[in-house]
Amino acid sequence: MPGVPPTRFVYLGPESTFTEQALLTIPAAERGIRKPARSVPEALDAVRDGDADAALVPIENSVGGQVGVTLDELANGEPLVITREVVIPVEFVLAARPEIRLDLVRSVAAHPQASAQCRRWLRAHLPDATVIDVLSNATAAQDAASGVVDAAICAPIAVGRYRISLLADKIADHPDGMTRFALVSRPGTPPAPTGDDLTSLAVYIAHDRVGALLEVLTQFTVRGVNLTRIESRPTGERLGRYVFFLDCAGHVADARVGEALAGLRRICADVRFLGSYPRAVPTGTEPPVASPAGLSDVDYADSAAWLSRVRAGGH
Amino acid sequence: MPGVPPTRFVYLGPESTFTEQALLTIPAAERGIRKPARSVPEALDAVRDGDADAALVPIENSVGGQVGVTLDELANGEPLVITREVVIPVEFVLAARPEIRLDLVRSVAAHPQASAQCRRWLRAHLPDATVIDVLSNATAAQDAASGVVDAAICAPIAVGRYRISLLADKIADHPDGMTRFALVSRPGTPPAPTGDDLTSLAVYIAHDRVGALLEVLTQFTVRGVNLTRIESRPTGERLGRYVFFLDCAGHVADARVGEALAGLRRICADVRFLGSYPRAVPTGTEPPVASPAGLSDVDYADSAAWLSRVRAGGH
Amino acid sequence: MPGVPPTRFVYLGPESTFTEQALLTIPAAERGIRKPARSVPEALDAVRDGDADAALVPIENSVGGQVGVTLDELANGEPLVITREVVIPVEFVLAARPEIRLDLVRSVAAHPQASAQCRRWLRAHLPDATVIDVLSNATAAQDAASGVVDAAICAPIAVGRYRISLLADKIADHPDGMTRFALVSRPGTPPAPTGDDLTSLAVYIAHDRVGALLEVLTQFTVRGVNLTRIESRPTGERLGRYVFFLDCAGHVADARVGEALAGLRRICADVRFLGSYPRAVPTGTEPPVASPAGLSDVDYADSAAWLSRVRAGGH
Amino acid sequence: MPGVPPTRFVYLGPESTFTEQALLTIPAAERGIRKPARSVPEALDAVRDGDADAALVPIENSVGGQVGVTLDELANGEPLVITREVVIPVEFVLAARPEIRLDLVRSVAAHPQASAQCRRWLRAHLPDATVIDVLSNATAAQDAASGVVDAAICAPIAVGRYRISLLADKIADHPDGMTRFALVSRPGTPPAPTGDDLTSLAVYIAHDRVGALLEVLTQFTVRGVNLTRIESRPTGERLGRYVFFLDCAGHVADARVGEALAGLRRICADVRFLGSYPRAVPTGTEPPVASPAGLSDVDYADSAAWLSRVRAGGH
Repeated sequence: MPGVPPTRFVYLGPESTFTEQALLTIPAAERGIRKPARSVPEALDAVRDGDADAALVPIENSVGGQVGVTLDELANGEPLVITREVVIPVEFVLAARPEIRLDLVRSVAAHPQASAQCRRWLRAHLPDATVIDVLSNATAAQDAASGVVDAAICAPIAVGRYRISLLADKIADHPDGMTRFALVSRPGTPPAPTGDDLTSLAVYIAHDRVGALLEVLTQFTVRGVNLTRIESRPTGERLGRYVFFLDCAGHVADARVGEALAGLRRICADVRFLGSYPRAVPTGTEPPVASPAGLSDVDYADSAAWLSRVRAGGH
Repeated sequence: MPGVPPTRFVYLGPESTFTEQALLTIPAAERGIRKPARSVPEALDAVRDGDADAALVPIENSVGGQVGVTLDELANGEPLVITREVVIPVEFVLAARPEIRLDLVRSVAAHPQASAQCRRWLRAHLPDATVIDVLSNATAAQDAASGVVDAAICAPIAVGRYRISLLADKIADHPDGMTRFALVSRPGTPPAPTGDDLTSLAVYIAHDRVGALLEVLTQFTVRGVNLTRIESRPTGERLGRYVFFLDCAGHVADARVGEALAGLRRICADVRFLGSYPRAVPTGTEPPVASPAGLSDVDYADSAAWLSRVRAGGH
Repeated sequence: MPGVPPTRFVYLGPESTFTEQALLTIPAAERGIRKPARSVPEALDAVRDGDADAALVPIENSVGGQVGVTLDELANGEPLVITREVVIPVEFVLAARPEIRLDLVRSVAAHPQASAQCRRWLRAHLPDATVIDVLSNATAAQDAASGVVDAAICAPIAVGRYRISLLADKIADHPDGMTRFALVSRPGTPPAPTGDDLTSLAVYIAHDRVGALLEVLTQFTVRGVNLTRIESRPTGERLGRYVFFLDCAGHVADARVGEALAGLRRICADVRFLGSYPRAVPTGTEPPVASPAGLSDVDYADSAAWLSRVRAGGH
Repeated sequence: MPGVPPTRFVYLGPESTFTEQALLTIPAAERGIRKPARSVPEALDAVRDGDADAALVPIENSVGGQVGVTLDELANGEPLVITREVVIPVEFVLAARPEIRLDLVRSVAAHPQASAQCRRWLRAHLPDATVIDVLSNATAAQDAASGVVDAAICAPIAVGRYRISLLADKIADHPDGMTRFALVSRPGTPPAPTGDDLTSLAVYIAHDRVGALLEVLTQFTVRGVNLTRIESRPTGERLGRYVFFLDCAGHVADARVGEALAGLRRICADVRFLGSYPRAVPTGTEPPVASPAGLSDVDYADSAAWLSRVRAGGH
């Protein structure tokens, strides 16, 4: 239940990956029960079935992009809502058994996404090493620990867990890469507005209407609501049919956001509310953009008061 | 007072013009006191000062266009509101003393707007007659009655009043010409919605913002509110500064119209509410356009209910 | 003929009004033949029929608004184009026979638009005087000269012409009032672009398409073309049918303006080109607004060059 | 080289996957040289380096969505263009050694995306089987052939290649799933317009401008150009920075598409042209949407002719 700190957490496993690292930044999770899940669907189903109070799953990566399976799971099945976001830097490291020196590394295990994000570093420092694709960052660390490969690209958290040593840190090509995780619960009253919130939506466009996406965006701009993310995903039915995942600044309890959501509800084939929650501002990120002239909360309150007066015969 | 039938009416004089003819179509006016005013400002000031309960003034002519002085008076000074519109056909007639036959007419008195609207008829039937400009349709009739001119272009109502005879009727070049009049009162609770209402506004655009008029129109289209009239008038300050007079379908009490008005209030330099009132549908006019898909009142109610559920933790 | 200085000018008469005053600011007109016309249609027909090379007619007044008859004449009949605009301050004066002192004035002749624009001054300085409506500013001056009335509201030019004396100048309520006149010729190659031009259009909207005016405005904004004027006029067919008169910054020879015009031509029921001509910048008026980022002429040239490269297989 | 059938093809390997199956639908490829590449970047670099004439890579999957690595490779590095698209149905099969019957299957090898797309079928028919994640559909088939697992989810093409037998076909949850492949070459004159083409773009938005995506979409709608696909991808710099991959109907040689592209070029931080090529219409797909009123090619030609006349002094 949002509002009350959940105690049973599930997260995308295996252990010792970025998701567990992200989960440990939530105070309640440090004190609570934490269980890895084999997949995002398994994690979310645990929440749907009541076996867990909240699930932490990756939702977006500044290099790899959308995490499609998470988006699809949120858009389909029993409704779930995001109650918190966690944003952590993507800091890949190269690690190996203590006796391995960097110049001896001939094979590196890595999840394909991880090696893709460290391509430039690998070309510069290990041009002759063979990259072995494995199915997770944790598997890579395990393979390095057991000697199946010489070294692994993995998350910092895995180094201590698998008793391997750091050969190089910050090896990602994009030093400012971030991954964004969503803490997901069963529907309930959203967390109270903080003044700097995000609202997530899954929006299905009526495809027989020309310019439908333009109309969707207009619903936001006309009310001065800033979009911070827009992602399209095929609906699975056929090529050319999309669901749009939108994040906008503000809380569903805000007048402007409520009005925009009601507007979407009217013109879209379907809208699924995926939660309002405080924005996680990672260090070094600029402050939220100010509302355009005439669209602040004060302006909203003023215009509502004026409308009431006019309706009552005043001016 | 809106709601209670006003009893003291003032109208743009002189007597025996289209405005008096229009006033007599209002049942309460037939029973009430009716006084002509010398000018639109005089008529509206009589209402502002409490000397009259309502004023009937012309606001728009399908041939001559906007009646600027009425628009300016509504946009400035103590606020007034329109509580009713009256639309009557513009049916100019040619009239003269009984002894004058059409082929004897050598001079025709007419208000310049009246002769302009009958130009083609005059060229066809009285190519050699001199047109004498006069300051009102009633003056024209008077001049014909007194023999100053041979004939007059005037309103049908003037024929009986000045004891002149009809030489020709329906002489206007545009047989479907209409004039629209507004019944104006001091602010008060608007007449109850009827399901087919109009709302009038005076909108001042913030001129330092690019695309400001586009934003104004978008406030309407995004909520499915149809504009039925748009007129620009200079504000008097300088060339290039305008106030826009807009009529939209719907009542200020409607959710969609209220939302659009509040939106205008936020982005415009100023908005003056000029009234919500039943649409006058003259015979032969097509029915109001249906709401676009997803923007009916039912859709508005549904989306409001959905938003309430979502805010309360449902979906 | 545009390009060659016209020698036979016609203007909206009578003599001694603001239009003649405006005409005298054009060097070629000072040297040419100047003839007053009884009405705007008469003036424009003289050009259409080849009896005059150019006509000067009022088109817009910063207080009284659009000059409907001029707009209607330009929108209908044989095409004509504007080749020059003249903007002059509206400076009404009060004038009378030499023996009349201000405190003796009991009656004032004035065109209704003139007295409307001096209402505040009259209330302050001549609260007890009777205002007599007359059909032109020149008639007012004549009536004052002949003693029919004590004084006249008229244009400065009339004072010397009718041998009357100035009682007060700058009596208009809006001291910055301007009137805009159009010099109109038969179609021909427009005057060469000067870098600060205006283009005038009459645009007929297809009324069966929702949001048609919004689409029209979008054709301009999407190409960074600023609208400097928008006026609606009924088409004469029925209430609710309008033609829009638009002025935009730029010349028909400019890439951006040409593209916008072609766009209008595609989506509108009809578009009539009414001329491209240098902007008249009256003293004290601010400079033209700079193009928004990415929409300067350089940007247009760059994007055209890029498109050519791409079409040829480059990038 | 577009225009001349390329002879040296490279495709995303390994052999016996959907990409090879798609390549074989291109007549020139059946006759040409075909080489698998280890990854999309390797395939595209082979074209960039001149080691291959064209590369076939997956670009979009109706279930799994965008193929991020392909999009990123097209948006970065030496420019490449798409000269052809191939769309084939996603038809997963379950295959095993001849002696294995369906009711004996206890383990199934599958690429995680493949098992995700057959989840419902697996739950219904093999609820107790263990799914073993492997790195490609071909590896799955190999593992089934060698007996490491009982069965494999793979492409039909793999069945004959690895001498395994079909246990079940059409096991994908979405029976209409499609995958879209792009044939990519070095830049050159695009294939000639066919009347039913697509144009692909990578568009970088200037993030300091409010409503930038809205402006991008407006560039298309205002010219009647239909978008058939919109995908966002992070630029890798940071969360909230996106490049948009857009497909629109039409060819870069078309007036409307050229105008829209030049418009994008002006307002966007950057635009990369990714090719114009014939639309692949898979059986059962509806015909392309007709142009909206006023935006057909005939309308474009008419408006261009009109503009030329107007610029020359006609109308």
